Amino acid sequence: MKNKQQNILIIGAGLCGSLLALRMGQRGYKVTLMEMRPDLRKVDISAGRSINLALSDRGIKAMNLVGIQDKVEPLCIPMNGRMLHDTEGNTTLAPYSGRDHEYINSISRGQLNALLLDEAEKHDNVDIYFNRKCESVDFENTTARFTEFNTEKEFIEDADIIIATDGAGSAMRQSYYLGHKFLFSFSQDYLTHGYKELSILPGENGSYKTYKNALHIWGREAFMLIALPNLDGSFTVTLFLSFDEGEYNFNNLITKERVLEFFTKYFKDALELMPNLVEDFFENPTAPLGTVKCSPWHYKGNTLLMGDAAHAIVPFYGQGMNASFEDVVEFDKILDAGHADWETIFSQYETSRKKDTDAIADLAIDNFHEMKGHVNHANFREKRTLEMAFEKTFPDHYSSKYSLVTFNENVSYHDAMTRGRAQDKAILNMLADGAITEVENLSNEKLKTILENVKAETEAILEDDRIAGLK
Amino acid sequence: MKNKQQNILIIGAGLCGSLLALRMGQRGYKVTLMEMRPDLRKVDISAGRSINLALSDRGIKAMNLVGIQDKVEPLCIPMNGRMLHDTEGNTTLAPYSGRDHEYINSISRGQLNALLLDEAEKHDNVDIYFNRKCESVDFENTTARFTEFNTEKEFIEDADIIIATDGAGSAMRQSYYLGHKFLFSFSQDYLTHGYKELSILPGENGSYKTYKNALHIWGREAFMLIALPNLDGSFTVTLFLSFDEGEYNFNNLITKERVLEFFTKYFKDALELMPNLVEDFFENPTAPLGTVKCSPWHYKGNTLLMGDAAHAIVPFYGQGMNASFEDVVEFDKILDAGHADWETIFSQYETSRKKDTDAIADLAIDNFHEMKGHVNHANFREKRTLEMAFEKTFPDHYSSKYSLVTFNENVSYHDAMTRGRAQDKAILNMLADGAITEVENLSNEKLKTILENVKAETEAILEDDRIAGLK
Repeated sequence: MKNKQQNILIIGAGLCGSLLALRMGQRGYKVTLMEMRPDLRKVDISAGRSINLALSDRGIKAMNLVGIQDKVEPLCIPMNGRMLHDTEGNTTLAPYSGRDHEYINSISRGQLNALLLDEAEKHDNVDIYFNRKCESVDFENTTARFTEFNTEKEFIEDADIIIATDGAGSAMRQSYYLGHKFLFSFSQDYLTHGYKELSILPGENGSYKTYKNALHIWGREAFMLIALPNLDGSFTVTLFLSFDEGEYNFNNLITKERVLEFFTKYFKDALELMPNLVEDFFENPTAPLGTVKCSPWHYKGNTLLMGDAAHAIVPFYGQGMNASFEDVVEFDKILDAGHADWETIFSQYETSRKKDTDAIADLAIDNFHEMKGHVNHANFREKRTLEMAFEKTFPDHYSSKYSLVTFNENVSYHDAMTRGRAQDKAILNMLADGAITEVENLSNEKLKTILENVKAETEAILEDDRIAGLK
Repeated sequence: MKNKQQNILIIGAGLCGSLLALRMGQRGYKVTLMEMRPDLRKVDISAGRSINLALSDRGIKAMNLVGIQDKVEPLCIPMNGRMLHDTEGNTTLAPYSGRDHEYINSISRGQLNALLLDEAEKHDNVDIYFNRKCESVDFENTTARFTEFNTEKEFIEDADIIIATDGAGSAMRQSYYLGHKFLFSFSQDYLTHGYKELSILPGENGSYKTYKNALHIWGREAFMLIALPNLDGSFTVTLFLSFDEGEYNFNNLITKERVLEFFTKYFKDALELMPNLVEDFFENPTAPLGTVKCSPWHYKGNTLLMGDAAHAIVPFYGQGMNASFEDVVEFDKILDAGHADWETIFSQYETSRKKDTDAIADLAIDNFHEMKGHVNHANFREKRTLEMAFEKTFPDHYSSKYSLVTFNENVSYHDAMTRGRAQDKAILNMLADGAITEVENLSNEKLKTILENVKAETEAILEDDRIAGLK
């Protein structure tokens, strides 16, 4: 590898940028990390909202790479499954896996980001600047133009390479698009639904008002509500709802009465936990849900997009942060190969990585539909019951699509998608055809036979698709 | 419907815009059609190139709608199949259909566009202006800003509704994107390959130097050459080649010697017909191949994107023009329904139309791979042999994917894609599994049995996908 004293400019000190700065610092590079917002360790910039995310095995692999998993773990609240709430207020816990040690973790975005910044800053070769907003990137000359927030002064930052981790609205990606200097494939796709964050406040002495160790879901086909626990006893609640379709939507929920009517009708048990609902509803913004894909991510050996800047996804697989953290793991692996120039490094990274970030983007959209509706359908529930039994009884011989994506950090997203979809198709069709007639209280022998049939059918589906030239 | 004396501004007098202006003129609307380029009937703007396109049944349906098919037919050269050229110069004619009356037509873009303009101009309520380039559209106020080419003066054009048919690089679509006034889903996707137009000049007395009634294909896996006939005895030849991959690519074909080496090695029989190759190669531009999708197409009842402006596709199914013409047919059908306001009309048009233009975009990319390579593969050829026999022997009981897309103007692109892909998968797998062992010289009885099995397998595939929730 090249002389490490060259300057690496990283734009955006969110989760991905902070981790990348830390890792590049550990590798000995001279790193400048520029962030648009103030230092979140000094200013409360989340306006009172306690945003949390799901950290799972791909993200944890990245924490282990930089050696801080022991500091991350205390920030985590394990969630072992989905707590499904029906309209009557009945609940069912649907585990994420049949293997007890497989669960996801609710973690505060702010706390994790602060930890990554603290760790990055320990390296003398890493400099972090806040309140500096990137306006555009000159990718031919490897310079970026910033505005300093307080003085409103503009300045140009020069670097040997620039890596933009400035999120879904990336300034560098916009420079690629508007530059018309090369063929830039780009997509932004919005769902018909937006989201709004609400909250269940802590009970007395920081107790939890509902079950702590689950991701709560109120799936109502056309819309849904979810809740994730925070360390302080609160839950961050998110409403996913169409902007303009259906009887109730964001455009027509404009009075206190109508919001209460909607929650009373569809989310009665949640409403009882949220006396603060109306206030939250009208104070918090409504935000869109979009998927961004693009290519190429890099311009020559000068600039590279990473994290949400390269591949923003919708939140329904809980993989946005995990995918961005995995970017850093995969980039690190390419660096290990010791190529002599950045163009080869960037190009190899994109070649190996893009099919996986495309896959998780598509899986996340699939899961939007699954979480809203399918989780309530008989055939979906039967499939899950069977898969839980497979994973519990034959833990080394089966992983559901969810497990492949979430708990198998050494299986690529693309392979997880291909195999996972074929498995789902096999089981759903075997249930529909009567090839599987029971899914509960099966003897181990019977379960084993079903598993073997599912595996054979999965292979047949993959082979049929391969012959037809389908992906 | 509303008062027809309101003003309709159409931006772009290409094939789609001219047809739309003609149709809206026939319906009695007051139409203003603005075109960026000079009048192609007065100025030769194709720089000596004779660009042609494939007109097929969906396009012909549109010509019939406006009553000019009798004037279009003399401009057409029927192409009954693909003439496949191998590296040795051997040729095989692969028909497009087993039904003799099903063929596609080579037609000059310029001649067809001129005819549409002539027809539109016959209506007093249609005004056409050239040399007026649209710079942007204010979709809130339904106005468009233009520059007059000769005087360089800017002016604003007001209208009751604006329909932009200004092609793949649509100015109005860019206004949607840059306006950030609503959630605009948008994608531009480039293939790794670009294209360059070449030509086979006419023989003596306007004779054809190679077989006239076919679309010639030299498929070479990583790249390909095609040729379509023109009325004057020439052929327009197009080379599809990667910009930067492989031994030979556009970036490294930079000397006369190297171009000749490439053509001698891969397209020897074509080279013999093109003594003008080197001149064409270095005079004509290399252009990219992109797919554009977006949504919404309309802003309220003010503005609407149509044709390539809404859905540009790659040329490999010969459906770009046909799809844009079908837009006008579908829009006309919505107008017939007599809705009271433009917002309902635009919204219903997009709802019914978008799944079909998405489908033809995806099919066109599939066909890129099919034309380059699959046409040479044994299993693909066996499938086509069988399909030709089905169509010839049981003309009312089978249509291949190609026939569904090209010759079944009353089957939507989306349905053609879904059924066509399932049929292909069924046949390819039955060939691979040994469920079909022979494809030539079959008795009618045997062929009938195979057809019944293919149909049953196709239904099973569609049903399996439906159960798995796949599209």
